Amino acid sequence: MILLTRKAEFSASHYYWNEAWSAEENARVFGKCANRNGHGHNYTLEVTVAGEVDAVTGFVVDLKELKDVMDREVIAAYDHRHLNLEVPEFRTAIPTTENIAVAIWRRLEEKISGAKLHRVRVYEMPDLFAEYSRD
Amino acid sequence: MILLTRKAEFSASHYYWNEAWSAEENARVFGKCANRNGHGHNYTLEVTVAGEVDAVTGFVVDLKELKDVMDREVIAAYDHRHLNLEVPEFRTAIPTTENIAVAIWRRLEEKISGAKLHRVRVYEMPDLFAEYSRD
Amino acid sequence: MILLTRKAEFSASHYYWNEAWSAEENARVFGKCANRNGHGHNYTLEVTVAGEVDAVTGFVVDLKELKDVMDREVIAAYDHRHLNLEVPEFRTAIPTTENIAVAIWRRLEEKISGAKLHRVRVYEMPDLFAEYSRD
Amino acid sequence: MILLTRKAEFSASHYYWNEAWSAEENARVFGKCANRNGHGHNYTLEVTVAGEVDAVTGFVVDLKELKDVMDREVIAAYDHRHLNLEVPEFRTAIPTTENIAVAIWRRLEEKISGAKLHRVRVYEMPDLFAEYSRD
Amino acid sequence: MILLTRKAEFSASHYYWNEAWSAEENARVFGKCANRNGHGHNYTLEVTVAGEVDAVTGFVVDLKELKDVMDREVIAAYDHRHLNLEVPEFRTAIPTTENIAVAIWRRLEEKISGAKLHRVRVYEMPDLFAEYSRD
Amino acid sequence: MILLTRKAEFSASHYYWNEAWSAEENARVFGKCANRNGHGHNYTLEVTVAGEVDAVTGFVVDLKELKDVMDREVIAAYDHRHLNLEVPEFRTAIPTTENIAVAIWRRLEEKISGAKLHRVRVYEMPDLFAEYSRD
Repeated sequence: MILLTRKAEFSASHYYWNEAWSAEENARVFGKCANRNGHGHNYTLEVTVAGEVDAVTGFVVDLKELKDVMDREVIAAYDHRHLNLEVPEFRTAIPTTENIAVAIWRRLEEKISGAKLHRVRVYEMPDLFAEYSRD
Repeated sequence: MILLTRKAEFSASHYYWNEAWSAEENARVFGKCANRNGHGHNYTLEVTVAGEVDAVTGFVVDLKELKDVMDREVIAAYDHRHLNLEVPEFRTAIPTTENIAVAIWRRLEEKISGAKLHRVRVYEMPDLFAEYSRD
Repeated sequence: MILLTRKAEFSASHYYWNEAWSAEENARVFGKCANRNGHGHNYTLEVTVAGEVDAVTGFVVDLKELKDVMDREVIAAYDHRHLNLEVPEFRTAIPTTENIAVAIWRRLEEKISGAKLHRVRVYEMPDLFAEYSRD
Repeated sequence: MILLTRKAEFSASHYYWNEAWSAEENARVFGKCANRNGHGHNYTLEVTVAGEVDAVTGFVVDLKELKDVMDREVIAAYDHRHLNLEVPEFRTAIPTTENIAVAIWRRLEEKISGAKLHRVRVYEMPDLFAEYSRD
Repeated sequence: MILLTRKAEFSASHYYWNEAWSAEENARVFGKCANRNGHGHNYTLEVTVAGEVDAVTGFVVDLKELKDVMDREVIAAYDHRHLNLEVPEFRTAIPTTENIAVAIWRRLEEKISGAKLHRVRVYEMPDLFAEYSRD
Repeated sequence: MILLTRKAEFSASHYYWNEAWSAEENARVFGKCANRNGHGHNYTLEVTVAGEVDAVTGFVVDLKELKDVMDREVIAAYDHRHLNLEVPEFRTAIPTTENIAVAIWRRLEEKISGAKLHRVRVYEMPDLFAEYSRD
C-alpha cells in the first residue's frame, strides 16, 4: 500500500463563540479567538489517499481528479470565506482546527474515487495542526 | 552599517471594498477579496533596522526593546483583529498588503530607538509580499 | 479519534561523549559532535495529543493548557541551556535526538490532561528528526 | 520503539509516457508530464528507520552509515540524472512519485543495517508527496 | 515608493554544455550538470515591481494582471519544459540560474503595466538563487 | 549587474558575556543568553556576490569555488564549534548575529575571486537575521 498526499491552501476568517455562554465565559475559554469581528488564517490542507499503484499509469490516484475534487468540495466553499457565516457545517460546530479537519474529511470521503481517503491534516498556523483519519 | 531584521506574525481578517463603487465594480476589481464577510491571513512581518554595532554589547538594537515595540505598536493592534473594522488607519485606506506595510512603517518609525527603521516587509501569503522604505 | 499537534522551539548546546571511552574512540564514533566545548541547535519540538473532540468547545485539548505544559516541563528546562551540563536526564544519557525525544515524552506523559500524549517529534536540524510514541 | 528520519535531496529529470499508447492518449492521461523532452524537479527524500535506542551511543542507527547508504544507493544513482533514461527501474515503470518511493524502498531495504527501514517518503514538489511502507 | 513581490514556480529540465568545448572540458567545468540527458529543478521565481500605491485601490499593481503576465510570458514557456531544447533564449545561452534571471527580466520588462519591474529573483534550489535588476 | 547567493549552515554554541560587567549586569542586558554554559543555534549563512555574467560559462562565479571558499573560511571554523571559546574573533567581540555577519564578511572579502562580495546575511533563528555590506 502506498500513500499519496496533496496540499492546498485556503484563506478564511473565523471566530470561536458558544451561543449558550456569556461574553465573559466565551472570552475566558476562547481568549482572543472570541472576537466576533473575526480574524483569519492561511490554512494549509493535506489530503492523503491510500491505494495500490496502477501498473499502467504508475498512479495511486489521478492527480488532476484529486485536485478537482479538493477544489470543488473544499476550496470553493472555504477559500476567501468567513467559516462561521458562510459554511453550513460551522453554523453549529465551532470552526476549530479539529472540527475543520473532520468537516473536510466528511466533504471528501465519498467523493474520492479510485483510492481511499486515508488522512486529512489541517494547519491553522505553521505551529498548529489537526489530523483526522478513520483508522 | 549593518541591518538587523526581526520577524513576527499576526492573524487578521480583512476585505477589499471601495464605498464609492457599486457592488459590481467592487467584485470586478477585487474579486473574491470583495466578500464583505471578510476572509483572513497569517501575516508575517519583517522589521529591519539599520545602525552601527555597539562595541560593548555587539548589538545594533536591543532585541527585547525591538520586540516590545513591535508587539505594542503593531501586534497588539492587528493580531486576531478585523483590519477594516478595528484598526483606525483602515477605516479609510483599503487594507491591501501595500497599505499594511506603509501603515506599519508609520506606527514604528517614531518608536524605534537606538537605530533607524530601514524597511518593513509584510507577507500576506508565502507567495505575496510588500516592502516599504524611505530610501 | 483526532490528533492535534503543537510546535515549539528551543535553542540548546550539547555534545556526544561516552565517559567509558578514550578520546580517540569518542572521536571515531561521534565525529565533530565529540567536541567537548559543545555546539548547538535550534530544536523544533512537535507534541501530538490524541482524543475526542469536545462537542461544546470543538477542542481535543485546551491549547493554552497544552502550551503551558510544554513551556513549563520542556522549554523552561531546555531552552538556552547546555543539555549535558544542565538537564538531569542527560547527565547519564547522551543527548542524541533519539534520547531527547524519549526524555520529552517522559516529561510530558503524566502532565498532559484531557487528552492522551500520542507522539513526540524532535528536529535537531531541518533534515534530521526523531519520533517516539508508545503505540 | 523510536523512529529516526533523515532527509536528502536530488535533482532529476523525468517524463511520463506509456509506450503502448498513442501520443494523444499519453497527452490526455499525463498532460504536461508527457513532454518527452523531459522536465525536472528538486526531489526531497525522507528515509525513516525504526529501532531501539542503543544504550551506549544513544543512537537508533549510525547517522553517518545511514547517510552513506542513502548517498550510495539512491543519490548517486538519481541525482543530476534523467530517471527514464538512466535509472534501470524506470525503463519499464513510469517514474511517478509513487513508483519512485517504491523503488527507493527496494534500493534501501536490504542495505540498512542496525535498524529496520520503516518508511520512505518522496516529495516531487512541496505540495505533493508519496509514502511507502510495509506495515 | 513601495515594492510588491509575487512568487511563482516552474519545473524544468536543463544541462550545462558549451558546444565549443570537448566533453572532458565540459565535465571539468560543469561537473554533474554536463550530463546531456538533462536533470531538473523546481524553480521558484520572485518578480518584484516598484510603484506608488494607488489611492483608490490600495494597489501598486493589479495582482491578477501581474499573475497573468507572469503566467503568459514565463510559466507557459518554461514550466514542464526542457530549457535547452524548448526555450529560444537558451539555444545559445547556457541556462544557468544567472542567465535564467536575465532572460525572465527581458521577457517581463516591457509587459508589466502600471508599475516598473524592479527585480527578478530565481531560485534553482532552496540554497542557490540569482537576482537581476537595472538599478 | 547580477547577484548570486549561496546558502550554507553551521551549528554552533555561544553565549553573551561582557567581562567588564558583573554577573547581574550581564543577566540584565543579555537575559538567557548570559548563561555561560552556552546554548546553540543552527545558523544559516547567505553569501551574495555581485558581478557580470561570463558569456562563455553563464556564471557570475564558479559555484564550486564559492562553496569551497565558504567551507574553508567559515564552515570549517564555525561548524560544531563553541564560538566564544574556539573562534579567534569572538575572544573579544561578543558573538551576536550582527558581529557574526561582520566577522564572516572579513573572512570572505579577500578570498572571493572572480566576483565581488556584496552581502553577508546570517540567520540565528528563522525569525532573526543580520546583514552586512559595504554599500
